[in-house]
Amino acid sequence: MTVNGRPQAPLMTNTQADRVKEVARLAGRPSRLRRREFLAEGPQAVREALRLHGHRQDDGGVVVDVYATAEALDRHPDIAEQLVAVDAPAVRRVTADVLAAMSSTVTPQGFIAVCRFLDRSLDDVLSTAPRLVAVLVEVRDPGNAGTIIRAADSAGADAVILTGASVDPYNPKTVRSTVGSLFHLPLVIGAELDGLQDRLRSAGLTVLAADGYGPLSLDDLQDASASRRLTTGGQGNAAAPTGKKPASGVTAAGIPAGIPAGVPFDRADAESGAGRSVRLEDPAAWLFGNEAQGLAPEISAAADARVAVPIYGNAESLNVGTAATVCLYASARAQRLD
Amino acid sequence: MTVNGRPQAPLMTNTQADRVKEVARLAGRPSRLRRREFLAEGPQAVREALRLHGHRQDDGGVVVDVYATAEALDRHPDIAEQLVAVDAPAVRRVTADVLAAMSSTVTPQGFIAVCRFLDRSLDDVLSTAPRLVAVLVEVRDPGNAGTIIRAADSAGADAVILTGASVDPYNPKTVRSTVGSLFHLPLVIGAELDGLQDRLRSAGLTVLAADGYGPLSLDDLQDASASRRLTTGGQGNAAAPTGKKPASGVTAAGIPAGIPAGVPFDRADAESGAGRSVRLEDPAAWLFGNEAQGLAPEISAAADARVAVPIYGNAESLNVGTAATVCLYASARAQRLD
Repeated sequence: MTVNGRPQAPLMTNTQADRVKEVARLAGRPSRLRRREFLAEGPQAVREALRLHGHRQDDGGVVVDVYATAEALDRHPDIAEQLVAVDAPAVRRVTADVLAAMSSTVTPQGFIAVCRFLDRSLDDVLSTAPRLVAVLVEVRDPGNAGTIIRAADSAGADAVILTGASVDPYNPKTVRSTVGSLFHLPLVIGAELDGLQDRLRSAGLTVLAADGYGPLSLDDLQDASASRRLTTGGQGNAAAPTGKKPASGVTAAGIPAGIPAGVPFDRADAESGAGRSVRLEDPAAWLFGNEAQGLAPEISAAADARVAVPIYGNAESLNVGTAATVCLYASARAQRLD
Repeated sequence: MTVNGRPQAPLMTNTQADRVKEVARLAGRPSRLRRREFLAEGPQAVREALRLHGHRQDDGGVVVDVYATAEALDRHPDIAEQLVAVDAPAVRRVTADVLAAMSSTVTPQGFIAVCRFLDRSLDDVLSTAPRLVAVLVEVRDPGNAGTIIRAADSAGADAVILTGASVDPYNPKTVRSTVGSLFHLPLVIGAELDGLQDRLRSAGLTVLAADGYGPLSLDDLQDASASRRLTTGGQGNAAAPTGKKPASGVTAAGIPAGIPAGVPFDRADAESGAGRSVRLEDPAAWLFGNEAQGLAPEISAAADARVAVPIYGNAESLNVGTAATVCLYASARAQRLD
């Protein structure tokens, strides 16, 4: 039997088959690391995996195998077309029971793709002159990691770097919560913390630590950036005084009467270069820390600046995904308008 | 036996006791609705529940019962002190097994409080002249709802309104993911969609629909707001031309040469009042829609404006929690600086 002129394998019906068990095992890390493969589940993830596959043919592609039920193929004819268009392996038709046995989720929605690991080396990523990078330092929750990868993609970040002790982004829960964004931007996995900040700086990135206890407020960075842009066309000169007092109780978020060209670096000037300052419109790497502990003090202190997302209400702290969203969007806005 | 001069009930050791089962049943909605009580689990949630309890003594308080292991009481002496300070019911000491049997989570961390429902009526909340309100329209995922409530609290919102078909915020998963914020700001539950937008407007709120397909970009609203503030002291007059062209590909996010006093309403001027315009610094109610479908078109169309959070990268869409975070922080910033 052929489909679109290609021979088609017979329907897989045996939930106990070795191949089914091998696919299911990819939900676990040891099997993923051994095979350097992971699962993309559901039509949206499979679509994005195939799209990237089409762009990576020179490297042997991304998609190793696609499994789908007849019903799902009928419901998503665009995927069947895409499989041919991007020269992906022929889809293997499976029963709903086989798909369920392969899947880590209760609703795989008829599609699973086995994909090759996507991550790139830190050197590789830094050599592309990135302007906005998210660094996950010991972020442990799969859902949080996925949310941050998706937010980084939305904000147009050029890469996401995960340090060694962070959650494995090929975890099925993380893959799911990126809703395809895992396939949109380069990932670096298992980055060594030692020396990382220097390497980021060497690549032209200002290193910003998202730190609720940081002395700089993201609001101040945004105000200074907006002021430079609106009053001088982004040349970074001093803004004209606005003559406006900050509202009571929001001093940290208010505008000083004369906004300097940049907010002074948190680190001693002697260390970071005299006269240098943090400008939100400059290329930046944001460091985001562990859910419970935040960034370790020595990591935060080594950054070019420790920046707090303001908390206007009574919340004790911000979820790391929320903080990352606010920081990455603030940088993206400043960079795009500059 | 007494603790802090108060009689203490004997240690609860029987995991099969009726009281244990009654507490455990509060993980389910029918029991919560019948008793109008819910579970706060873990030291942080119990602390916040007790803090609110201290402020609500006139209404009979918030906390009905507190259960704790001896180890947890030792580890968190501040909670034992707080129990006395806020005149809460005496803590009931339980074994770790009893606590586990009561809890909906695998790690209750030694503390559970049974709390009275906190929600208020829509009239009640709108009568307080709120300036920033988040409205969850059929948000179904407990974690998303919790993330938005926490983000609303962080952004200093005055209330969160959940429409009838939204997830129950007293769901233990939602309570957990608010990390105490559930106790920080007023909630309205089961709000009728019919007539809701008119009531919000009558309370002086501009109704903004967070809608990925909206014709207005949040960037434009932010630019116009920043421009008014920086050039005119927030009086809303036309900004001076910046002479700066938007970067290629980001027209929607760029600054027009002359920024108007406000961005024109999305709705026909005839409907919304001639000359009115959307100003991000004005009091606002943001509508956030369902995870899969977003806001229904008729709900979005009835808002004063449909506002899209820009997607700079390749993401197909934003997680509703991410979108809500960006929108609420943008409003909070504009309002606080105005």
